[in-house]
Amino acid sequence: MTKTENTDASSPAWPDLAGRLVGDNSTRHHIIPVRVYFEDTDAGGVAYHASYVRWCERGRTDLLRLLGTDARRMIDGSDNHEPAAFVVRRMTFDFKRPAQMDDVLEIETRVGELGAASVTLHQSVTRAGQVLCQADVLVVLVSVSGKPLRISERVRAEFLTTQQITP
Amino acid sequence: MTKTENTDASSPAWPDLAGRLVGDNSTRHHIIPVRVYFEDTDAGGVAYHASYVRWCERGRTDLLRLLGTDARRMIDGSDNHEPAAFVVRRMTFDFKRPAQMDDVLEIETRVGELGAASVTLHQSVTRAGQVLCQADVLVVLVSVSGKPLRISERVRAEFLTTQQITP
Amino acid sequence: MTKTENTDASSPAWPDLAGRLVGDNSTRHHIIPVRVYFEDTDAGGVAYHASYVRWCERGRTDLLRLLGTDARRMIDGSDNHEPAAFVVRRMTFDFKRPAQMDDVLEIETRVGELGAASVTLHQSVTRAGQVLCQADVLVVLVSVSGKPLRISERVRAEFLTTQQITP
Amino acid sequence: MTKTENTDASSPAWPDLAGRLVGDNSTRHHIIPVRVYFEDTDAGGVAYHASYVRWCERGRTDLLRLLGTDARRMIDGSDNHEPAAFVVRRMTFDFKRPAQMDDVLEIETRVGELGAASVTLHQSVTRAGQVLCQADVLVVLVSVSGKPLRISERVRAEFLTTQQITP
Repeated sequence: MTKTENTDASSPAWPDLAGRLVGDNSTRHHIIPVRVYFEDTDAGGVAYHASYVRWCERGRTDLLRLLGTDARRMIDGSDNHEPAAFVVRRMTFDFKRPAQMDDVLEIETRVGELGAASVTLHQSVTRAGQVLCQADVLVVLVSVSGKPLRISERVRAEFLTTQQITP
Repeated sequence: MTKTENTDASSPAWPDLAGRLVGDNSTRHHIIPVRVYFEDTDAGGVAYHASYVRWCERGRTDLLRLLGTDARRMIDGSDNHEPAAFVVRRMTFDFKRPAQMDDVLEIETRVGELGAASVTLHQSVTRAGQVLCQADVLVVLVSVSGKPLRISERVRAEFLTTQQITP
Repeated sequence: MTKTENTDASSPAWPDLAGRLVGDNSTRHHIIPVRVYFEDTDAGGVAYHASYVRWCERGRTDLLRLLGTDARRMIDGSDNHEPAAFVVRRMTFDFKRPAQMDDVLEIETRVGELGAASVTLHQSVTRAGQVLCQADVLVVLVSVSGKPLRISERVRAEFLTTQQITP
Repeated sequence: MTKTENTDASSPAWPDLAGRLVGDNSTRHHIIPVRVYFEDTDAGGVAYHASYVRWCERGRTDLLRLLGTDARRMIDGSDNHEPAAFVVRRMTFDFKRPAQMDDVLEIETRVGELGAASVTLHQSVTRAGQVLCQADVLVVLVSVSGKPLRISERVRAEFLTTQQITP
């Protein structure tokens, strides 16, 4: 029972470019596809471990985009706020199986605990439904001067509708 | 008069993931979209110049994919040939305007001169129809041992249908 | 009381290229310097979080190099063993302060728990003695076919001399 | 007859970190060493072509550093000038032989033609004296707002002492 929501965040010519918000209520999450290119691999013949870190950041950026908050507007303050950005404070990656050149992967992002200035994202990298990597990433909203900022009510409300209920 | 061709190269869930072959005859070319993420930018506030090199490689890889030749099958020789890869021999990049965080770009790839073992690709990075960067990239098909290999008739024929006629 | 050991692992022209093993007994650890270049930064104006992951991998690679085991010889099996590589199984990064363009950083690597096929490395990224980032990285020795391999006695012995004694 | 100049640009603990200015008069040029790590390689088993672009940027950045102009001070304007940066306008790379994991490379940078706001750098990537790659890179000094800026007399004078005389 997966529901895909419409959004204006993507280019009309490339409707899936920012991925999709899927699922209802407690299962709602974000998915973007990632293709493994040469740039993502290393001489071991599989995807380089730091590539997963870049891919998960794409997932978080596009989740925010589909929730109506893009990074450039936050950074330059044109969002009517002090210039700010979500920065990574802590991240844990578990690697289970290697991704390979030409693979089509999906990056799934779920909202976890929500603090005043921070949020934990639970992310997984899957291939044909099989989990290759799992990540927990704690991000904090900080102003350009480095001060933690309270996440706005609008963004909090959006996060809450995407949040996983952990029983 | 742009025609989009169907292909099995993409994942059914993400039909545009490998981009599209568009146009007819002498205008036929390949397009993939690229989103600018934090990973692509630098402290100058715009896209890092080596990011364009990675993006153009995605375009060439997906052009080959839509023409029926993917990189992993070439590399491991499962394509019924000696393990091989297209490697860059020479590349020229002209930077005209900077790309910025969150931009939606299109990478266009056109086939130029075709040699026995080599092909020149003419590529451009555009934003809303405006050219940000132009590149000419000469790639050579080499075996894993480093020997130039003749491009197969099937791939040559495919390249020829995508080739730009230079009067 | 820091002792620097001689090694043939570095190029004679660039004696520090693989960093240094410093300290005695329980304080012995590896240090390499890293300069922050544009490639390491993002539009937020500071170092991109995945850059720390690449830097720590340089530290681990050069620790192995100074212990007499370089990655290429492991990968191609010229080390008289089955082709193999240390792959990352799990990693945790804590980011405390941002690194900036032009900074001179030091990557410190200490050996932690040692399993039959695995080892945990405790790493930190410092600037002028101040910790910017701390990482724990569990790596496993696997053959090219993906099978865990027992770490050789020689490499185990080397790790043990570099291991931190946790009381 | 190679002469190495002293400089305060490097960290005292790591005297070679910014490379060296070597040679006299018409042969004066800059060299930095680069180690090939996993991050620089791809599944083809050799260095990824965009890695050379990153390495050459390190060479240009450290040439400027040894000439007394570092990138951060230019970008934030603390150099007593309008915030500015050298940006790449055009680059050509010729790839002759592949670099491999664990290789020690040297990036050599020579100053070519000098315009009012621009300079061409001639760069090569060598291994044990053998050229792997040659690059010509045209960079332009631009303000943060994108306007070309005249290169200061001090930097021009420094470039001239490092310039190659082309007969």
